[in-house]
Parts: sequence; structure tokens; C-alpha cells
Amino acid sequence: MMHLLFTADENYARRIPVVLESIKSSNKGERVSIHLISDELSQELRDFLAGFCADLGYDFFTYLIQKSTFSKAPVNKHYTNAMYYRLLAAEILPQDLDRILYLDPDVLVINSLVPLWNMKLEEGVCFAAASHTTEEGILDNINRIRLETSSVYFNTGVLLMDLTKCRELVRRDDIFSFIRDNGYKFILPDQDVFNGLYGEMTIQIPDEIWNYDARKYSQYLMKSTGMFNEYWVIRNTAILHYCGKEKPWNSSYRFRFGNLYRHYEQLSERRGSNILKSRILPQEKNL
Amino acid sequence: MMHLLFTADENYARRIPVVLESIKSSNKGERVSIHLISDELSQELRDFLAGFCADLGYDFFTYLIQKSTFSKAPVNKHYTNAMYYRLLAAEILPQDLDRILYLDPDVLVINSLVPLWNMKLEEGVCFAAASHTTEEGILDNINRIRLETSSVYFNTGVLLMDLTKCRELVRRDDIFSFIRDNGYKFILPDQDVFNGLYGEMTIQIPDEIWNYDARKYSQYLMKSTGMFNEYWVIRNTAILHYCGKEKPWNSSYRFRFGNLYRHYEQLSERRGSNILKSRILPQEKNL
Repeated sequence: MMHLLFTADENYARRIPVVLESIKSSNKGERVSIHLISDELSQELRDFLAGFCADLGYDFFTYLIQKSTFSKAPVNKHYTNAMYYRLLAAEILPQDLDRILYLDPDVLVINSLVPLWNMKLEEGVCFAAASHTTEEGILDNINRIRLETSSVYFNTGVLLMDLTKCRELVRRDDIFSFIRDNGYKFILPDQDVFNGLYGEMTIQIPDEIWNYDARKYSQYLMKSTGMFNEYWVIRNTAILHYCGKEKPWNSSYRFRFGNLYRHYEQLSERRGSNILKSRILPQEKNL
Repeated sequence: MMHLLFTADENYARRIPVVLESIKSSNKGERVSIHLISDELSQELRDFLAGFCADLGYDFFTYLIQKSTFSKAPVNKHYTNAMYYRLLAAEILPQDLDRILYLDPDVLVINSLVPLWNMKLEEGVCFAAASHTTEEGILDNINRIRLETSSVYFNTGVLLMDLTKCRELVRRDDIFSFIRDNGYKFILPDQDVFNGLYGEMTIQIPDEIWNYDARKYSQYLMKSTGMFNEYWVIRNTAILHYCGKEKPWNSSYRFRFGNLYRHYEQLSERRGSNILKSRILPQEKNL
């Protein structure tokens, strides 16, 4: 059983069916449980997601958080409260769950997640994540100085978490102090907290497989001297991450792999409307 | 129940799982029967396709044809004997089947086929097909003169056939005489025969929906003054047709929508290898 975690507000939660539709396609026969942590989620959307998961054969669990929990954390229009909840996942999720794979809602899964899910995390390693910084590591160095860490700067859009270890290592108080002391320096608040506090407990996984920045086709191609072409990506990349402000659900999106996202968006909407239809029909019968 | 027809040699038949995988995604819950007419098909591939269809929940029927049937038809390396068999479908397929949707094996289905499948064909109309010629119709005029027909020049890669009417109208002898009399003029042999003999019994359906030439993104966009953009195609086009010599299963393919094809190729290969694995395992158990 693979346990996947999303944390999202009402708006971002609407993207989850697209991700789930893509997971189903590329992970046939896998048993999957979906966990969703949120501080605002309408009953309507919750029911819809539950129905969507049921249709896929996935279990679905939601956890509603008090907004006040993170009231001291910096937020702005691109970074909402909800983005902090992954840090507290070990506390929020059932205590008998020992591992979870967190996914941002702006990803698309196009190959099997099983190798990542089954990855062994050595002693002292609590997380697995990829870095989007260049090979030269210029941004890494800037981030190291900024956040006073010696590790690479991890992107937390895909994060494998050992919850058992997290329960010992991740403390709510550490997070609050770190935000209090460093909040003014934050560029990407939740990611900065993660890197500052837990970067050194994190093992790096290849971003071209597990957290492919969908804006950077040419950079990947160059970095790999031509190996990571479109064919390679379709065959090998498991998670496409539509990072940044431009999103493939907006009609202005212009990057490669936008059409794959939109196709899954279309498939998930079709499944969604069939679910809604099948709910309405039995009621109509009663008339 | 939707009945779909492919005609293919061993080589082209290997592309069928990709098409089926895409049909399954975009036509969930539809009952589908796959019919395959061929003059050469190894038992191995036939078994594989049968297993693939069974895994999808589709019925699968094969019809093996004597190669000699069309020995007088012109063939070259791009146009094989197999491409003529669609013309004889009404003769070959079970006599109680009254409608079939023929698909070239180099298509990808990305939306529902149901509206086409349910299309009403008026009296005297035996087929529905799309044309790839430009709005200005220059090629249409050349083809009209060449094949002495007054209809547009149809692409036969997607062809809805009323088999009941075909059984009255399509005669093997007509086809042979037409090939004998006009064979020297053929550019696309099977398509030329279809257009020359049956173009006037065919109703035109929009190619941007039912037979989108995947090489021609810019032309479609221009023709529609910007309406048929990528977003529109993903939402509205049901059948992408990878026409021409360059094929998306070759690594050199450079057109838009190549990644969608490759993604379905990857999904179908994964399904295929799972089917093969599940077959080998029970045997190993016996050791």
C-alpha cells in the first residue's frame, strides 16, 4: 500500500483529481491511499474527492487543521498556510503510518512511483527530495549562506518522509523558532523552513526522475548532453513538476509537456462528471 | 457496443496496443469489440493482442485473409496489401455486424469516440470520413480530375462504415476493375481506390475532431484564426492521426503531440509486460 499526501487549500485541492488520474494511469494495480491535510475544504469538494478516489479504487482520508496553528508563519499570495502542513505531517497523520510520499498538487505522474516509495532511507536520513539548482551549484551556495545549512537546496514539491523518524526529529517548537528567527530572509517560506531545519537529514534523489521542473526542458537536455530528450523523459521521468507561476491549467501556459497535463485534466474532468452524473441519476429515479 | 476495425500486417499490428490504451483512457465504461483483418500475423502477436484486449475488457476477433486476394493491387513499401482490406470489410466481417469504425494503427484517441460511432448516416451515405485537403481545395481539384470524382478527397485513416449498405454497394469486381484501369495513376493506392469508387457515398466529418493531422498544428491554428490551439485540441479532438512518413514511435519525430503518443506507448508497454509476466509466473510455480 502506497500512502500519498497532499496539503492544499480549496483552490489547490481542485487540482488533485488531475494528479490522481495520472497516478492511476502509470501505477496500475498498485494499492494507494490518499491523505489530504487542509485548513479549508468545502464539504462539496471533500465529497467530490472522496467519490473520485472511490472511483479509482483509492482510500481517501482528510485531516482538517486549525488555521491558527501557523499564524506566525509568513504567507503571501503564492505561499499559503497550507504549504506548511507537510512539515507537521508526522504529527497529524495516524501514528501507525510509518512512511508517506508528499506531492505538490501541481505535479503530473507519468511513470511508476514504486521505486521511490520503496527507497531505503539509511539511519539519520529522514527525507528524500530532489534539488532544482544547477550542477554548478551557484544557487546552492547562496541558499547555504542564507539559511546557514551545508546541504544542497531541496525542492519540497516531492518529499518522501519517514514518519517514524520524523516523530522523533521534527518538533513544532523548532519550526516556530526558526520562522521567528529567520522569517525575514524567506524567499520560499515553507521550502526555506524545510531546508534550514531538515536539509541535512535529507537524501538527494535525481530531479530528472522524481521532480522534473517542466519549465526547463532545454536545461535538462544541455546538462545531460542530449540524453534527457523528450523520449527519455516520457520513458524515465516519474514526476513532472509544473513549478513557478505559469501553470498548465492556464491557457497561456507555453512550455513543453503542457499538453500531457491538459490531457489528464480532460480525463479527470470526464471521470468527475461521470461520478456526478451517476449520483444524480439514482435521485431522479426516486421522483 | 462499439465495433472498431484495424487492418494491419505484423509490423503495423504492433502499434495497435498503443491505440487501444488511448481508447481505453478516453472511453471509460464503453463496451468495445476489436476486429483485426490481416494476411500475416504470428500466433505470438495474435495471442498478445488477445491478452491485451482481455486485460482492457475488450472483445477481440481476427480474420486472416489469403494474400492472393489482392495480388493485382499496386503495393510499395509504404502501402501494403493489408491497407486494401478495409474495402472488403463488409464481406469479411460477420454478416450480422451493421456498422464498424475503421482506424489506422497510427492514430491516438484522446477523447470520446461515441459521437462518431452514433452518427446517423442518411440514405445513400455509406461512409463518414474526413478530408485533409486545405480549405481552398487546390489538392481536392487535382484529385478530382485525377480520379474522375466530384467529391472532396477523403483521408481513409478514420472511416465509419455502414456495413449493411456496403454489402449492397461494395463489390469486389468493381475494386479489381478500378485498380486495373487506374492503377498507374495511384499516389496513395488504397485511398485512391476508396475516393474513386466511394467518395460520392461518403459524408464529410470535420478532420480537426475526427482525423487531426498531427503534423499540421500551425495550419489548423491559422485556418481557425487561432481557435484550434493546443488547449482546444486536447479538449475537442477525438482522433490524432500521425500521418506521413515521420512516426512518433521513431526517436526523430519532432512534431507537437509526439509526447502524448509516447506516453501511451509507455503505458501500453507497461500493460503488455505485466500481461506477459502474469503468464510466466504460473508456469514458474509449476517448476
